[in-house]
Amino acid sequence: MNSNIKWLREKLKMLDMQGMIITNPINIHYLTGISVSAEGVLLITRKENIYITDGRYIEDVNATLTIDDGIIVTDFKDISKDDYENFFLFCENVGFEEDNITYGQYKEYMHKYRINNFEETEHMLEKQRMIKDIYEIENIRQACHITDRCFNHLLDFIKIGMTEKEISNEIEKYFDENGADGLAFDTIVASGVNTSKPHAVPTDKRIGPGDPITIDFGCKYKGYCSDMTRTIFAGFIPEEVKPVYNLVLKNQLQTCKDLKEGANIKIISKMVENDFKLHGYSLIHSLGHGVGLEIHELPYINSKNDIQLKENMVITNEPGIYIPGQFGIRIEDTIQITKFGSINLCTSDKNYIIVDKN
Amino acid sequence: MNSNIKWLREKLKMLDMQGMIITNPINIHYLTGISVSAEGVLLITRKENIYITDGRYIEDVNATLTIDDGIIVTDFKDISKDDYENFFLFCENVGFEEDNITYGQYKEYMHKYRINNFEETEHMLEKQRMIKDIYEIENIRQACHITDRCFNHLLDFIKIGMTEKEISNEIEKYFDENGADGLAFDTIVASGVNTSKPHAVPTDKRIGPGDPITIDFGCKYKGYCSDMTRTIFAGFIPEEVKPVYNLVLKNQLQTCKDLKEGANIKIISKMVENDFKLHGYSLIHSLGHGVGLEIHELPYINSKNDIQLKENMVITNEPGIYIPGQFGIRIEDTIQITKFGSINLCTSDKNYIIVDKN
Repeated sequence: MNSNIKWLREKLKMLDMQGMIITNPINIHYLTGISVSAEGVLLITRKENIYITDGRYIEDVNATLTIDDGIIVTDFKDISKDDYENFFLFCENVGFEEDNITYGQYKEYMHKYRINNFEETEHMLEKQRMIKDIYEIENIRQACHITDRCFNHLLDFIKIGMTEKEISNEIEKYFDENGADGLAFDTIVASGVNTSKPHAVPTDKRIGPGDPITIDFGCKYKGYCSDMTRTIFAGFIPEEVKPVYNLVLKNQLQTCKDLKEGANIKIISKMVENDFKLHGYSLIHSLGHGVGLEIHELPYINSKNDIQLKENMVITNEPGIYIPGQFGIRIEDTIQITKFGSINLCTSDKNYIIVDKN
Repeated sequence: MNSNIKWLREKLKMLDMQGMIITNPINIHYLTGISVSAEGVLLITRKENIYITDGRYIEDVNATLTIDDGIIVTDFKDISKDDYENFFLFCENVGFEEDNITYGQYKEYMHKYRINNFEETEHMLEKQRMIKDIYEIENIRQACHITDRCFNHLLDFIKIGMTEKEISNEIEKYFDENGADGLAFDTIVASGVNTSKPHAVPTDKRIGPGDPITIDFGCKYKGYCSDMTRTIFAGFIPEEVKPVYNLVLKNQLQTCKDLKEGANIKIISKMVENDFKLHGYSLIHSLGHGVGLEIHELPYINSKNDIQLKENMVITNEPGIYIPGQFGIRIEDTIQITKFGSINLCTSDKNYIIVDKN
């Protein structure tokens, strides 16, 4: 068995659960390496780990697993009513993922598997996933590296007169041609007044001289995500934008310094909120979020979350200021927490950047 | 109030439910016209219909609704704890959609809305959606019409040496440029031996002379789907393929004739299964499925479903034979059931078609 499944079995023992049904495909991938597209259910029973899937995925799943994983793969068509009833025989308590099963499935599973006590597991796998191992960090680092190189490519590519969509298409093409599995999320390219909306979608608007351009993008590498934002400028930087840019950058840099094992998420977030308030602005979204197999995962970095950071969490640091009807600035890196500080997995320049200068 | 919501309120009365929480975005769209992307929850309370959504969707939602819809739109941020507790005050039974709510949400809603009896509604909206009104049929007809014209375009476009992906990209482009909202599902273009897999994904394989090409495709028009499959040939038709093609076509045509109000789905499916068996083949997937706002919806057309067809159901008729390692043939139309027969909403030719003949 691999170390993640071993960990889960220990955890279940501690919780007095004799089995678990795992339905979240990301958690199944985390535990087994099985692709999230090979739909199925992972059973942790007293004696075995069993992946129940559809016939058309079995070849793929078997190609992913090795004998060391200790997982039996079965076509759901080959499972009898008796088999279902025997999986959790002699199990008093069986765990399930309450946010990854519908109410209808909950009732169906209770009945089909003849479960005595079906117990919520309160995101224990998502919480475990917060701490990344070396393999995971290496994949996130690779995803960030491709993202950095893409950004570098964009600095030559972006010209006044191009549309936001042309730029976002180029990002997709670059990722496709440079070793990424795909996009980590829908790319944001916003220019001019569109930068004032934090979740802008690329439009046919053309880049004009003096436009700020917010690019929020990331790719996947072996399933792991990167997430980076830069706000750059076309031709020149309007004077009124500079103080806002400086304020965002100052806070982003200060946060990079403050991040380390033991730092309190609430306090870190409050410091940025307070500094923005002091200057007449406010932080209208979270300061960041965990990054891993999902683009947004635990821990959430905002002033409601009164917990401490731990070594090998990977999170974003993305303060932003948005002035409705005018412009917005956001600067974001993906960052690994260490015992005594943090490692910035994104290395792209954060000072003023002007593209298409002449 | 529109007629769909009126129907729902009557139905709830009959079921002795005084309210309902609707969470399936397709059902919300069906009842209100609100876009499926404007995430939210629809409450049917004693006195009001309330759509609770996120601030960023409110403008869009209000632009969709008219005063006649009788729906109040609210930002969830403006709803207090008391508001939640008052929505279903004096309601003994409140319905919910058991397959569109997680177990976690189920518990959260019970608590937040202080619901006495939270009752499963057993897909009553999905069942109601089986019968299409004039507006819905007109939209499906339009989607089928665009699909027919796309097929006609492909007959000129497809040449030996092209890849499957090139053809599927052309389909997407055609839909995009000819009035469709988008794809109804991921297009299947399979050629040669790839046609032996019913759910093939377009690859970089080039079309060779004598290849059968299965094209299974459809678009959306005002949210409604079309679904059509043709198997055509590049250059010439290999002799060994013809008997299989003829058998599939014969059954597809016979089914078209048999479909009408009152026809039994199980019997219709059995007839095709039996005829295939008689010739040494088998029907390895359903004969068809309902089509509407979703590409696959009720009723499912297979020999396990012992129910009668009704007027204004819209379903597919798609027999197929797949010979592993050799080739496959599938022919599919989208069909409206009428009192005395059926109307084929797809009009493309189903006889032998050869493209790039010389």
